[in-house]
Amino acid sequence: MTGPVFQRIAILGAGLIGSSIARAAAERGAAASTTLYDCDPSVGERARALGLGRICASAAEAAQDADAVFLCMPVGAMGRAAQELAGALKPGAILSDVGSVKASVARELERAGLHEVHVIPGHPVAGTEKSGPEAGFASLFEGRWCILTPLANQGEDYAGAVARLASFWEQLGSRVETMDAERHDLVLAITSHVPHLIAYNIVATAYDMESVTEGEVVKFSASGFRDFTRLASSDPTMWRDIFLNNREAVIEVLGRFSEDLIALQRAIRWGQGEALFETFSRARGIRRAIIEAGQDTAAPNFGRDADKGSADRGSADRESADRG
Amino acid sequence: MTGPVFQRIAILGAGLIGSSIARAAAERGAAASTTLYDCDPSVGERARALGLGRICASAAEAAQDADAVFLCMPVGAMGRAAQELAGALKPGAILSDVGSVKASVARELERAGLHEVHVIPGHPVAGTEKSGPEAGFASLFEGRWCILTPLANQGEDYAGAVARLASFWEQLGSRVETMDAERHDLVLAITSHVPHLIAYNIVATAYDMESVTEGEVVKFSASGFRDFTRLASSDPTMWRDIFLNNREAVIEVLGRFSEDLIALQRAIRWGQGEALFETFSRARGIRRAIIEAGQDTAAPNFGRDADKGSADRGSADRESADRG
Repeated sequence: MTGPVFQRIAILGAGLIGSSIARAAAERGAAASTTLYDCDPSVGERARALGLGRICASAAEAAQDADAVFLCMPVGAMGRAAQELAGALKPGAILSDVGSVKASVARELERAGLHEVHVIPGHPVAGTEKSGPEAGFASLFEGRWCILTPLANQGEDYAGAVARLASFWEQLGSRVETMDAERHDLVLAITSHVPHLIAYNIVATAYDMESVTEGEVVKFSASGFRDFTRLASSDPTMWRDIFLNNREAVIEVLGRFSEDLIALQRAIRWGQGEALFETFSRARGIRRAIIEAGQDTAAPNFGRDADKGSADRGSADRESADRG
Repeated sequence: MTGPVFQRIAILGAGLIGSSIARAAAERGAAASTTLYDCDPSVGERARALGLGRICASAAEAAQDADAVFLCMPVGAMGRAAQELAGALKPGAILSDVGSVKASVARELERAGLHEVHVIPGHPVAGTEKSGPEAGFASLFEGRWCILTPLANQGEDYAGAVARLASFWEQLGSRVETMDAERHDLVLAITSHVPHLIAYNIVATAYDMESVTEGEVVKFSASGFRDFTRLASSDPTMWRDIFLNNREAVIEVLGRFSEDLIALQRAIRWGQGEALFETFSRARGIRRAIIEAGQDTAAPNFGRDADKGSADRGSADRESADRG
């Protein structure tokens, strides 16, 4: 087994991602010790109860003597968090984050003007729709990509810090890729941000269809809709900040999406079956590639109750009973 | 255990749904015997190899002496299939189907002019993204709704036939609801048809973004996109027919969806964080209702590799190895 990459890491924000880093670092020995801070004291308490590390009373206290500090809060809160660290970080420390947007975060972290600190924005492309310290787990990053977006024109020390941070993520099970922040933001707009926006949107549309009751939507959700509700149950604050901070790329991709959707709508209106068939057929190839790349399982998922069994069956029975 | 509802059922189309009905009816004793026919002889052969029932050489042969006949092909093929049954069905037999669109199917089945046959369109709201006889399984309908859309102004015999068909689906584990065909088509447009169209569309949009490579989309798909590719890997012929046959409801719901999406896009452009937060927050309630109704599990799903383990890990390892 490899030794710890860092003697001490500090995690600011003990939610799904922060708590998963704490768990994974402990389980895989990637850090000798972990300190945590959360701006919500009750979240800090829950993290303490879960034994995730030493819980500190302030961000500055948690960051003291840390070799690497991870900002694990919504991206809109990162600028202020970085400013609170002024004077608290030791020389040569790494300041990174886990935000889903990188260009605006890089600007905020640079703006904080922390001296002798290596600012290396990062984004582990992993997560679930759950929130809070209880939702984290040690294997969350396994087989998932972590994207680092190092700043341009830095020296040799900085390159060494990037290499250490990459080793850390690899020890958590991640595969590491580096790219520039703008490219990250465009790629993630298409693979993550716009899909989430669309999921939120269709749930809202369904909710507002006065001719269809919420009960009907819920009952018959197994036919596709429920998968969107899962994406749409992610943390609203996190997502608000993502969209506000990746405005241009999201609007560009949305423009494409809407244009393509109008074309499909027109094909439906005019009965152009071949055009529909062609579009629908292309999707299977990309699905296969995703499964081959280990980013999803091939197991059919609509029928997932059939596999998982008792939990669902229980609630179905209860509902039937309620209905007499 | 309840006895068989039908002495003999005939299943025309041995794909995912048809083969699942055959399996479920056998396992749960809902039919004493099952005949099958598929217009693709190789599919018929595979169904025979799977032991799904007696495989017949024509639709008419399969339907002979059947108490209930289920059309399990894409909805665009149902009209002709019904016409092929002229003279083959015994008096008092039930002719039903499993299509995701009901008003146009009802018109087609009535148009076939089958005498002394009870036409009862139906739709089991269950499925996976897989196709073919191998993809079916006996528990597919368990805890899922089956919607029947009986014709208006029928007699007492017809009501009895509807009751028998409902019993059959209940014996397969379904819960049964009846509604009129037009309402079905509107409700399913929002819970199923438009979600699938959107999934197909975003996959196509991603594919066409020349500034983002397919490799990048695949790599980082775990952040939301992959869930859409699963929906978008469903059978293209089936979906083409659904959209061509539920044109009006789909276009109505799409109009709402696009209007709502433009409003979200505008909120992003103008930095209206509160409007975004409000829309995102509403989605959680409907998600909770779906889980409580037993139509999905509460288990987080983005991290599904963490649960399923070895299969994925294997392919991830292979990819790493390939990349040297």
